[in-house]
Amino acid sequence: MNYLRIPALLPLALLMGGAPPEEARFDAQGRMAFPDGYREWVFVTSGHGMSYNPVANAAALAPFDNVFVNRAAYEAFKATGHWPDGTVLVLEIHAASDKGSINVAGAFQSGTARGVEVHVRDSKRFKTQDGWAFFGFDPDKQAPAEKIAESASCYSCHEQHAAVDRTFVQFYPTLLPIAKAKGTLSPAYVKEAGQ
Amino acid sequence: MNYLRIPALLPLALLMGGAPPEEARFDAQGRMAFPDGYREWVFVTSGHGMSYNPVANAAALAPFDNVFVNRAAYEAFKATGHWPDGTVLVLEIHAASDKGSINVAGAFQSGTARGVEVHVRDSKRFKTQDGWAFFGFDPDKQAPAEKIAESASCYSCHEQHAAVDRTFVQFYPTLLPIAKAKGTLSPAYVKEAGQ
Repeated sequence: MNYLRIPALLPLALLMGGAPPEEARFDAQGRMAFPDGYREWVFVTSGHGMSYNPVANAAALAPFDNVFVNRAAYEAFKATGHWPDGTVLVLEIHAASDKGSINVAGAFQSGTARGVEVHVRDSKRFKTQDGWAFFGFDPDKQAPAEKIAESASCYSCHEQHAAVDRTFVQFYPTLLPIAKAKGTLSPAYVKEAGQ
Repeated sequence: MNYLRIPALLPLALLMGGAPPEEARFDAQGRMAFPDGYREWVFVTSGHGMSYNPVANAAALAPFDNVFVNRAAYEAFKATGHWPDGTVLVLEIHAASDKGSINVAGAFQSGTARGVEVHVRDSKRFKTQDGWAFFGFDPDKQAPAEKIAESASCYSCHEQHAAVDRTFVQFYPTLLPIAKAKGTLSPAYVKEAGQ
């Protein structure tokens, strides 16, 4: 039944022909290229002023974080509750404003991205951490990034607290129910969450 | 040059064959159908606890709002700085939590959507408001919705304060620079914002 809809999608494919591929790209030195176009990938969630460590003063203008994932990985997660090889999760830290135009309360995203952190699964390239690796980018420079060393706390924290496959699906409201239904929540998370 | 990339996109098209079309659908009574799949459209922005009216107590657990748009309209906006006929902007109001798992500050999206508000441009169907109309949905019921009457404040507020084409592009950080570059900001907004 899908076959019949392909002709109608061809103009979309034509339109998308100029978009960068939704995948992680690496140079000969193993550095990851900035994930161009990630903001047009599938939106997973956003948070505001989140922190995994105590914050001295929770500023009103704390940044937002937006999470995106490449569509192929998203479709695989919906089908299986797991992230496949080739998954690229992008966390964008975005500047915020509180007053502007007609807004009188709360906060909205304004200005530009301040940081881009990427979590990639590629078991052929990364032989430890179940194939996962972290990369961090300056969105103003968009220079290629070295893999973050596995001694960094992001690895241990994700290993200890991730709901699914070393990723924080507990913060992704449309994906958490899928993981529950597919039975892919980690035992450690289930114990921690009392679920 | 785009032509050569189409074969590689065909598997994606196959995969997407089962997704609902990214468009507004109406029944014989003119009611709009719930925009199935909108959460997989292009993410525009999100806000937290935003209000256009004074809030008595800005609760810590104020909801988030996520804005999505159909990809064809998004691509047209990038090219022209205007929204074309067929634009469907979806504002999702989403429940929030502040404490959970390892989070100790700020807020994240949790639970389910609480409301879905849609702004559609279809000049053949809507002969006033430059072809724009508003619809509101209960995401739990997803029942077809009547057009919101033009006497509602959403119409007058958007007419008076919108940055572009009766839409609040002033809150869409990646689209506002495009509107500035294309010269499509409304005179009223330019005056209000002092830009």
